[in-house]
Formats: sequence, structure tokens, C-alpha cells
Amino acid sequence: MKFSSKVERCRLSPMRKFHPYAVAAEAKGRRIYHLNIGQPDIATPQACMDAVHHFNQKVLAYAPSPGIPELIEAIRGYYDALDMHFSPDEILVTTGGSEALAIALQCILDEGDEILIPEPFYPNYNTMTATCGAYIHPIPTSPEDGYHYADRAKIEAEITPRTRAMLITNPGNPTGALLTEEEMRMLVDVAKEHDLFLIGDEAYREFFYGGEGLRSFGKYEDAAENVILADTVSKRFSACGARIGCLISRNHTLLGHAMKYCQSRLSVATLDQVAAAALYTVGPEYFTAVREEYKRRRDTVMEALKKIPGVVCRTPRGAFYLMAALPVDDADAFQKWLLEEFEDNGDTVMFAPGEPFYATPGKGKNEIRIAYVLCQKDLERAMELLAKGIEAYHAR
Amino acid sequence: MKFSSKVERCRLSPMRKFHPYAVAAEAKGRRIYHLNIGQPDIATPQACMDAVHHFNQKVLAYAPSPGIPELIEAIRGYYDALDMHFSPDEILVTTGGSEALAIALQCILDEGDEILIPEPFYPNYNTMTATCGAYIHPIPTSPEDGYHYADRAKIEAEITPRTRAMLITNPGNPTGALLTEEEMRMLVDVAKEHDLFLIGDEAYREFFYGGEGLRSFGKYEDAAENVILADTVSKRFSACGARIGCLISRNHTLLGHAMKYCQSRLSVATLDQVAAAALYTVGPEYFTAVREEYKRRRDTVMEALKKIPGVVCRTPRGAFYLMAALPVDDADAFQKWLLEEFEDNGDTVMFAPGEPFYATPGKGKNEIRIAYVLCQKDLERAMELLAKGIEAYHAR
Repeated sequence: MKFSSKVERCRLSPMRKFHPYAVAAEAKGRRIYHLNIGQPDIATPQACMDAVHHFNQKVLAYAPSPGIPELIEAIRGYYDALDMHFSPDEILVTTGGSEALAIALQCILDEGDEILIPEPFYPNYNTMTATCGAYIHPIPTSPEDGYHYADRAKIEAEITPRTRAMLITNPGNPTGALLTEEEMRMLVDVAKEHDLFLIGDEAYREFFYGGEGLRSFGKYEDAAENVILADTVSKRFSACGARIGCLISRNHTLLGHAMKYCQSRLSVATLDQVAAAALYTVGPEYFTAVREEYKRRRDTVMEALKKIPGVVCRTPRGAFYLMAALPVDDADAFQKWLLEEFEDNGDTVMFAPGEPFYATPGKGKNEIRIAYVLCQKDLERAMELLAKGIEAYHAR
Repeated sequence: MKFSSKVERCRLSPMRKFHPYAVAAEAKGRRIYHLNIGQPDIATPQACMDAVHHFNQKVLAYAPSPGIPELIEAIRGYYDALDMHFSPDEILVTTGGSEALAIALQCILDEGDEILIPEPFYPNYNTMTATCGAYIHPIPTSPEDGYHYADRAKIEAEITPRTRAMLITNPGNPTGALLTEEEMRMLVDVAKEHDLFLIGDEAYREFFYGGEGLRSFGKYEDAAENVILADTVSKRFSACGARIGCLISRNHTLLGHAMKYCQSRLSVATLDQVAAAALYTVGPEYFTAVREEYKRRRDTVMEALKKIPGVVCRTPRGAFYLMAALPVDDADAFQKWLLEEFEDNGDTVMFAPGEPFYATPGKGKNEIRIAYVLCQKDLERAMELLAKGIEAYHAR
């Protein structure tokens, strides 16, 4: 049987690639410290479960295609407090931030079109783009300059006649890179001048560690036609399993097109929308506490990395990931070795090898992504294992 | 800003087209009887809400991309009881049956490819197909022969070099047409002989009214490479708002491709999967009761239709929809008139005009779809309003 050429271009998740080796290691009695996945361990606010436990519908019915009014109002309230103002019809509730991104790309990208994305980037963008028959055109960066991409000349050099959009993850996954206000203004200007959509994937918006204040592409009202936000409760409220996100834009033609997709999948899960609306009742003290916790973890990871000879990593300023270049030729081979050969008191460690985060062939081979979503004690042990692992790998 | 040529081909839902007219009619104090939407009024089994109320996770975490084992096992158990046997990796949990269909089509259809679908068909297939850059090639039918499409010569005449799949909704939405075992065997044979995927949208599988017994394309193990099932708890358990479906196949290459899409959207809502697993604990007496209820309603609708001069409608044998040709030129204009001009004791009625259910231009103009998801009393009144409406429309 013949399959779509588009699906043939897609790959399985690199985060799950070493799963069989992990299973084998665990079968040998190893304890694995996971730095490879972005599932936070922070408790979901109690308001979520309370809403779930109070939910009662005789018929668990379809919600309206654009989302339940209660959740749309909660989202509006959140943005209003951040001085970003949207009308109810400028917010479409989606099944996670993933669906918001998928819908945005489907509205924009035709067969053969290109989308500019700084690399390294979130690998799921590959499938979302390939589904449209389009291609990711990477904006190159390097570990040495902290994966900095927000340079006008560098970006404009990559724009081609097929470029339709820029997709910016800010704060960055996998790099933790955080844009300055000036850089955001510049990106908005580039989008406007070149008639590009500017898609802001702002899943990690609350996670910044240098007192920078919360930033969003939603603030640039002068780029109403260009800016699209993909938002989600997943990381904001540690509620990944709710699969509630939203697509936000002031471009009403785009919203009209997006609504066609929303209608074609009928609605987003009713109960999760109710639970998500309750999440928005938590106060700013919640974000402050979570931010402090992740900052402490980031500092733990950076401190440990700085002590490992040959590691290249500039301190990231946001999200809960970082990329680092290791003093190994091939992070894939090193990960395999860590699971098959290495142990320290029965323990070993997993990260996400860097290559799948790149579109440019061969890049990222000696890099890894670390997700610092473990509690302090486990994180310290994981970083110790990484250091010992590198040492033992060189001493083979 | 330029949008994708694919999204430009999509349309908004025809079921929502008359929503502004309905709002205006209600503002004038009219009560509208809705025969236009497929939201059942049957109570969701209590097991669902019980599971929701007992759910407790400190962190509402991502579920595995293919679904939670508990739900996959529940689905397997349901199929085992129907003598259809699937291994756990042959079932992928999806966000509603809609996502199962979208993923299946994305795995198969390339730009310019064709999929055979009997018309009239569920209009959301349009967006799903256009998203792939592909086209629906309709298998024609007529109200006079009860929308019968399962004829080998008729189907083979529509196969072109670009045909990749057949999509069969059985029992049918919008027609309520139900295939015989012989017809299903024939369709499977055609798929095998012409190397086509056979996608069975079996959302309404439990709803058959002539004692036919439950039928599924999942029973044809000799077509393991061809058959893909899109399944859902939405109608089976009156749990549309859970958005839980699944994609089932014995074609492991297809499943491998489908998994790429499952991973790219991370997971299906955790809580709804737990609730859906609980739904599968209801016994066969639940289906028997629901079937009886819908049969009674179908009979009510048919009895009323038979009394209206000029209506063409053969008794449908499944699902909870039917299509009928009305003695009017234009069902759209008639619906608009019913909302703007007509009333009987302050009441009026809505249905779904037939044209958007067709791919062939001009077809279905005098047809309507009726969803019989109202309680007996309301359904009787709705049908009375339809009869009176037609009479008054002719007497203008």
C-alpha cells in the first residue's frame, strides 16, 4: 500500500528513541534519572481537580467549536491583567498548544512553502510542517553564542520567495533562550516588512529567571495582521494532561479560516475546558513560587555543567530546558553507552540527544537537551551521573 | 496576507449556517425544535461521571501518545466480545473519531489524490480531505433508491489512477443507510483488488433497527492491509464531549506512520481517557435500551414523513439520521423562511439543508438531513411543524 509522501518525511519522536534501551537498563536493575522529557513534576493547582470533582452533566455534550465562553473569558482575563486585550472571537480554544500550532500552519502553508524557525527547535514542528507539505528553513545558531538568533541581517538572509511565516518559541525549547524587548520589536518589524506571519509559541511565557518581566508577541498591536499566538495551560499550570491550549490573533481572516478546522473536529473536550477555566483562578503568587523553583534548578544544572571540562553552555534565561555541547563526538552513541555500559551505584542518566532538534544535517551531533523538571535532590544526582559518565566514557 | 490554498477550499460547517437566523428567531420569542444537530439527548452512563469524580492525580500529566493502557484494554475487550481481535499496538487512542479520520487521511493522501466517498456524506470529510491537498470523488446515489451505493459496477466506474482509499460511514451519516454483510464483503474485495485503503467510519455501529446484528469492517481479517477503523465513544455512549476515539488497523506500516502524528500532538486528554475506559464497563442492556429508543424515534419521523405529500424517503435502517427529498425547490430558502416568516403557536423547526452533504454541484438542493435526537414528544411536534411549514410554504 502506498502512503502519503508527507508522512514518509516525518519521523518518530527523538525523545522516545532510547525508550527500548531504557527498558533494557531497567530490566537489569538500573535506576534512570530522566533529563530527557519535559513533563514537569510541579503539582497542578488544586482548583483543577476541584472543578473536575464538581463537574456534573447528565449528557457529556459537545462544547462549542471555538471553546466554552467560561474558558475564553478566563483566558481574556489573564491577558487583560498583562495589558494585552483580545475580544472573545480572537481566542480559539484548542486541544493543547499543539493543535493551535497545527491549525495556524495549516491556514498558512501550502505545498513547497517555507517557514523560518531558529534551530535547534522543538522537533514536533517537523511533523506539523510536513503535514502541510511545507519545509522548515532554519535560522542557524551555535552553542558558543548561546543559540542567539535574533539578528536582523541573519534572519533576512534566510527569507526566500517561499517564506510565509516565522515561528518563534519564546522562551525557547530546547535552548531556554529568551528574547529582549528590542529583539521582539525587530522580529515584529521583519514580519511586517516581509509580509510574514509571526507565530509566537509562548508555552513557557511565565518562566524567566532574570527579573526580565513577562514578554509576549501579543503586545504588538501594530502587527495585528501578522501575529499569531499559540498558548497552553500545559506548562503554565503543570497541567499537560488536560490538553488545553488556544490560538490567539487579531487577524480576523486567519481566525475565520482557523474556525473551519475547529468546526471540522467539532469541539475540544468539555470537562478539560471547565478544569482549565478553574486553573486561571490561581493568583500571581503561584507563578512566583514556580519561577523560583525552576530558577533554583537551572542554577543547579548550570553549576554542575560548568565543572565538566569541555562542556559549552551559556546560562539560559527562560523555559526549563537548556542545550549544551558535550566533549563527545556523538551524543547518540554516548546516550546508548550510558544505558548499556555505564552505572554508578546502579544509577544512570538520560537526556535528549541534540541532532533531531536541527534541520541542518549533521548539526547538533555533540549536543544534548536537558529538561530540569526533577526535584533538587534528583537533579543534583542526575548531573553528577552526567559528569561521571563523561569521565568514564573518555577513560574507556 | 496570503493563506493556504487548501484552507481556502474549506468551508464553515453547514450545520451552523443558519445559526444567526435562529438567534434572530429566538429574539422574536420563537421556540425552535432542532432536528439539525447530532448531539444526542440520551444520558451518558453514570460510570463516566463516577470515574471523573474519583480521578485524582497530583500532577495532571501527559498520557502516553498511543493512549493509556487501561483504555486500550477496555477497547480490546469490547472488540473481543464482538469476535474482532486486535493486539494493543493495533489501537491508537485519538481525540475523538475526528482525529482518527484526520490521521488516517494524512497517512494516505497526497496533493491531488482522490478518496471515494458515497454522497451525501458527513461534510467535515471535506476539510479533512482538503487539509491533505486531496479531493473527494463521490459515489452518486439518489433519494429514490434510498441512497444505495454498494454496487460494484457503480463504485468501480469511479476509481481513477489517483484513487487511494474508500471512506464508508456505516451506518450512514447523513442517510442512515446500513450495509448488508454481502455488500461489506464486496467493498472489501474492491479495496483489495484495487489496492485501496478501506476506511470504515463506524461511529454509529450500535445503531441498527432491523435486528441485523452488529457489523464492522474490522471482521475482515483477510483485508488486514486495507482496513482502517475510525471509532469513537461519542455516540455509542452519548459522550460526545469526551472527545475520545480511536484508530484501529492491522496494517502495521500504517500504524507506524499514524504514531508520528500521535507523538506530534503528544497525547490525548488524560482524564477523558480514564472516563472513557469506565464507559466500556456498561453492559449490552445499555445498547439494547438505547437502540429501542432510537428505533421508536425513527419510526415516529418516518410515519410523519409518509403523511407529507411529495416527500421522498426510504426508511433508513441505522444511525440516527435520515435524508429526505422535500417538495420544495430549495431547502436552504425553505429553512430561511421557516426561521424568518413561519410560526405555529410560536414554534418553528430547523433541519440541515442537504446541499453541503454533496460534492456534486447542485445535488441535494431539495433535500434535508434530520437528526432524530429529540425526545418523543418534541420529535412529534418537530415533525408536525415540518408538515405545517411545507403546507404554509406552498400556500404563500
